[in-house]
Amino acid sequence: MITALKFTLLLLALAFAQGLHYNYIDELDKEAGTVRAVQASQYVSLWPLPQKVKILDLSFKLTSFNIVDAKESSAGSSCSLLQDAYRRYYEYMFGIAKRQGPRKSRLTGPSELTELQVWITSPDSECDGYPSVTSDESYELSVDLPYAVLKAPKVWGALHGLETFSQLVYEDQYGAKSINSTAISDFPRFAHRGILLDSSRHFLPLKVILANLETMAMNKFNVFHWHIVDDQSFPYLSRTFPQLSQQGAYHPYTHVYTPADVKMVIEFGRLRGIRVVPEFDTPGHTQSWGKGQKDLLTPCYSGSKPSGSFGPVNPILNTTYDFMSQFFKEISTVFPDAYVHLGGDEVDFTCWKSNPDIQKFMDQQGYGQDYKKLESFYIQKLLDIVTTTHKGYMIWQEVFDNGVKLKPDTLIHVWKGNQEQYQSEMANVTSAGYKTLLSTPWYLNRISYGQDWHGHYKADPQDFNGTEEQKKLVIGGEACLWGEYVDATNLTPRLWPRASAVAERLWSAKDVTDINDAFNRLSVHRCRMVARGIPAEPLFSSYCPREYKGI
Amino acid sequence: MITALKFTLLLLALAFAQGLHYNYIDELDKEAGTVRAVQASQYVSLWPLPQKVKILDLSFKLTSFNIVDAKESSAGSSCSLLQDAYRRYYEYMFGIAKRQGPRKSRLTGPSELTELQVWITSPDSECDGYPSVTSDESYELSVDLPYAVLKAPKVWGALHGLETFSQLVYEDQYGAKSINSTAISDFPRFAHRGILLDSSRHFLPLKVILANLETMAMNKFNVFHWHIVDDQSFPYLSRTFPQLSQQGAYHPYTHVYTPADVKMVIEFGRLRGIRVVPEFDTPGHTQSWGKGQKDLLTPCYSGSKPSGSFGPVNPILNTTYDFMSQFFKEISTVFPDAYVHLGGDEVDFTCWKSNPDIQKFMDQQGYGQDYKKLESFYIQKLLDIVTTTHKGYMIWQEVFDNGVKLKPDTLIHVWKGNQEQYQSEMANVTSAGYKTLLSTPWYLNRISYGQDWHGHYKADPQDFNGTEEQKKLVIGGEACLWGEYVDATNLTPRLWPRASAVAERLWSAKDVTDINDAFNRLSVHRCRMVARGIPAEPLFSSYCPREYKGI
Repeated sequence: MITALKFTLLLLALAFAQGLHYNYIDELDKEAGTVRAVQASQYVSLWPLPQKVKILDLSFKLTSFNIVDAKESSAGSSCSLLQDAYRRYYEYMFGIAKRQGPRKSRLTGPSELTELQVWITSPDSECDGYPSVTSDESYELSVDLPYAVLKAPKVWGALHGLETFSQLVYEDQYGAKSINSTAISDFPRFAHRGILLDSSRHFLPLKVILANLETMAMNKFNVFHWHIVDDQSFPYLSRTFPQLSQQGAYHPYTHVYTPADVKMVIEFGRLRGIRVVPEFDTPGHTQSWGKGQKDLLTPCYSGSKPSGSFGPVNPILNTTYDFMSQFFKEISTVFPDAYVHLGGDEVDFTCWKSNPDIQKFMDQQGYGQDYKKLESFYIQKLLDIVTTTHKGYMIWQEVFDNGVKLKPDTLIHVWKGNQEQYQSEMANVTSAGYKTLLSTPWYLNRISYGQDWHGHYKADPQDFNGTEEQKKLVIGGEACLWGEYVDATNLTPRLWPRASAVAERLWSAKDVTDINDAFNRLSVHRCRMVARGIPAEPLFSSYCPREYKGI
Repeated sequence: MITALKFTLLLLALAFAQGLHYNYIDELDKEAGTVRAVQASQYVSLWPLPQKVKILDLSFKLTSFNIVDAKESSAGSSCSLLQDAYRRYYEYMFGIAKRQGPRKSRLTGPSELTELQVWITSPDSECDGYPSVTSDESYELSVDLPYAVLKAPKVWGALHGLETFSQLVYEDQYGAKSINSTAISDFPRFAHRGILLDSSRHFLPLKVILANLETMAMNKFNVFHWHIVDDQSFPYLSRTFPQLSQQGAYHPYTHVYTPADVKMVIEFGRLRGIRVVPEFDTPGHTQSWGKGQKDLLTPCYSGSKPSGSFGPVNPILNTTYDFMSQFFKEISTVFPDAYVHLGGDEVDFTCWKSNPDIQKFMDQQGYGQDYKKLESFYIQKLLDIVTTTHKGYMIWQEVFDNGVKLKPDTLIHVWKGNQEQYQSEMANVTSAGYKTLLSTPWYLNRISYGQDWHGHYKADPQDFNGTEEQKKLVIGGEACLWGEYVDATNLTPRLWPRASAVAERLWSAKDVTDINDAFNRLSVHRCRMVARGIPAEPLFSSYCPREYKGI
C-alpha cells in the first residue's frame, strides 16, 4: 500500500531565483486568443505559501545529506513518527537511492549542506499522540551553513516543516540537488483544514484513501472527514452490529472497511498529522442502515398500509436510542479523534408524514405538523447520547437552523446556498457563539470546463459581516468530494490540484490572493505531486519533467 | 507496455436472462429525489449493441475452453493478428490462467462448450493488411453445441466478433464461466468511428495512447485521429526535419514520439482493427513548427517593424511549399493509412494583416482585403502537394466553408456551432456531394456535472435536412478529447465510458436509443473495462465487483 506511493522523485527543474524557468513554456489560450507567459514565482514552488519566507540568492549543494534529530530535541530516535517522516521526505527528495549512514567526518565544500537538524522544542513532543484541533502546527526553518535547522514545538509542526524543506530543494543546471539559503516562519491561518471523501456512493479501496491522505500531507491538510456511510451503502464493519455491513455494504467481504482497515487509515493519518473524523449521518441518508438493523428506519405508508419502503431513522421508538447508544459507544472507541460528525442534513419528511404512529406521536408531543420539531427531538436525544461518550460533535448547518440545543463547543458545518446565503449563515452561526467550518464554495465534486480552481481559491471563510470575535469562531473549512460520480478510477485527479487551492486558502495569510503567482506556484506543485506518483491533473496546457507513469 | 493492459478479468456477475441482477443495487438520485431501479437489460451487457441479437434461455459452461481457427478459415495459425487476439480475449475471459493446450479428447457434459471456431470466409483474410474506410467489419456469431462459430469475411469482423463473444461470457451462481445459446449478426452503421487525442497541449506517454487504443477496440472504434502537433508543442520526431521536435517539443528526448514509437502505435492499432490517421494542422495552430523551421511562419509586424512574434504558416514563400512537399512525403510513408488530416481550422488573420510583404502579395493577387482568399491559396497548394503523395485528405469544415477546390473523395470534418448550425453544415457539405464526419456534439474535453453522456448518446450524425443520398455521404464521426486540460493523469477516466456512448451511436442501428436500457448495459460495460484494467469512470452511484486497482 504505502510502498506504492514511494516513487522516485525527480526534483523539479524549478523556475528559480536564478532566473531559469524552462519548466513551462509560454502558453497560448486558444479559446480566449490570448498569450500568457508563465513566470517564475519569487516564492518558487512553495505551496501552500508559508506565513513568512525569505529566500536569498545563495545556493548550497546537498551533499551526503541526512535528516537527523537535533541533540536538543525532545523527540529522539524512538519517535517513529519522525523517523518515518525523515525516510519519506528523503525519498521524495533523493528517490530510492540508499540512505546515507551516519556521516563520516569528511571535508565538505564551502557551499555544501549536509544536514537538516529537526528540533522539537517543547518538552512533550506529542510524538505518540494524535493531532487535534488545538495542536500546535507551527515551525521555523533556517537553511544555512553549517546545517539547516527545523524547529517546532511539536511533531506536527515538524511534519509541515519537512514538507516545506522538500519543496525548497531543486536541481541546479548540472542536475545537482540544491537549496537556497532560506528563513521561514510558518503556522496555519486556520486550525481545521479538511477533505471530505465519501465511501458510500462508491466504495473507495484502502489504497485510494491512503494515497489521498499522503497527498493531503503534501498540501498541509490536517483533517480527513470520512463520510463513511450513506443511503447507498454501509461499508463500515461494526464489531457491535456486524449485520450493518453484512447487509448494507455493496458486498460484505470486498466492499467493507474492517477494524484493521480503519486502524490503518487512522495511523496512516496520524503519522502525517491528519485527524480522522468519521461521519455517521442520521436520521436521513440512512437507507443502507435499515438493511441490517430491523426497525431502525421508519416504515412508510401508502394509505393505511406499509408500502414496504422506509424513510429516515424512526425517532419514536426506544429501540432506536438503545441502538444509537451502543453504536456510538463503539465509534467513540474506534476513532480516537475528539470529534465525530453526526450529519443531520437533508431530512425528508414525506415518510414520517405518511406513518400513523409518527402522526400519533406528533399529536402527543404537541408538534402539530411541524416535522422540524420531530427532527430536533431525535437530534437532541442523539446529541445527548454522543455527549456521554465524551466526544464533541460536528453537525451540518440544518441542525443549527432548526434550533436544536447544542453544546457550546459544537462545530456547525456550513454547506448550503449561494455566496450571499452562506455568508449570511456564517454570520448567524458565529453571532450565536458557535464555532463554524465552511464547505459551500468547495464542493469539488461539482465540475465545469476550464480552470475552476480560481473560484475555490478566491473564496474566503471569513468574508462575511461580523465582528472580529465572530471571525475568530471560524476554525476553517473543508473541500468536499461527494461520491456520486467518483470512485477509484477518477477520484485522485479530480481532487488534486483543485483541493490544493483550498489548502492554500486555509493555511496561508489572508492577503495571499495573487492568482497569477498562485498559478505559477501551483503548476510546479502539481508536477511535484505527479513526480511523487499522484495523478494530479493539469491546470492548463503544459508539461511536467516526469509525466505520470500510470494511465 | 502491452502487458500492463493484461489484467485479470473477473467476468462480471451479470444481470442476466435468468433474472439475477445483483450487480447494481437500486439507486437513489439524491439530487432529483427520485429512486430508480437498475434493471437487467435483455441484452445483458453488450456494448455497442449488435445489429441482430438473439439470446436463448439456455446456458453452457465453458469447459477446457479454446479459441481456434476453423478448418475452413482462410486465416490459419500464421495469422498473428488473430492469434494475438485469441490470446488477448482468452485472458479477458479467463484471466492469466494457463492457456489450454490442444484439447485432449475427453467426454464433456451435455451443456459444456469447449471451443470457439473462428472462420474467415473470404479468400483474402486481410490478416497482414491495414484496415481502411472500406474494410468489411461484419461478422456472424453462433453460440451453440457442439461448438461456437464466429464467421467473418475478413479479420476485422472477427476482431469485433471476439469482443462480442467475450461480452457474452458471465459467471453463473456457482462462479463457473458460462455463456448462453446466442445468435448474432452484426456490422457497423458507420464506417468511420473515431477518437481524437491531442498530444500537443499535453504530451501523452505511449502507454496512455496504447491503453486507449485497447479500450477503443473494446468499444469497436476503428479510427485513431492523432492530433499529434499544435501550437504548444511538436512531439513528432521527423526523420527529414529532426529540428522540428528538437526545438518544438516540450523536451527533445522525453517528450517526443520517435519513429519506433509511431510504428508501435500503428501496429498496436492494426492488430485491433484501428486505423491511425495523423493530423498535421496548418496554416494555423503551428507556433511550435516555427521553432525548428526558420521562415516557415509569417513574421508579425508592429507598425513598420517585425514584432518578434509569428503568425500562421507564411503562404507567400516558395520555401514554404518546398518544406511542405518534403514533410508530407515523409508523412505519407510513415503512416500507412490512405488518409491524412490536414487541419485548416481557426486561421487568425491578424498577423497576416500586419505584414507588408503579405499585403503586397494580396494586392498582386487581387485579393483586396479578403484574407480567406489567401488562406484558400495556401490550402489549395497544400492539397495539391498531398495529392502527389497519393493520400486522401480530411480537413476541418472551414476549408469547405471558404470554397477551396477539393477532390471528390475529400472528407469534411464538421466540428463547429450549435445543433442547428452543425446540422445545417452537414446538409451543405453533403449537398455539395462531399463525404462528411461529425464531431461537434462529441467534444468530450467539455465537461459538466452529472451524466453528460446522455447528450452524446442522443446526437445522431444523420439528423439533418437532406435526401437519402446526402445521408449516405455521412461516413461517421469522431469523439474529440482536446488536450488543454488532460494528460496522463486524467485522460482515460475522462474519455471512458463517455466515449462509449458515441461508440454505440456510430455502430448500432439508428433506432437503438433507449436511454434506460443503455444505462443498464453501459454500467456493466464500464465495470468490464475496469476489470480489464482501464480506469473508466462511474456513471452514477454503484459499484463494480472488482474495483480499479490503481489510484
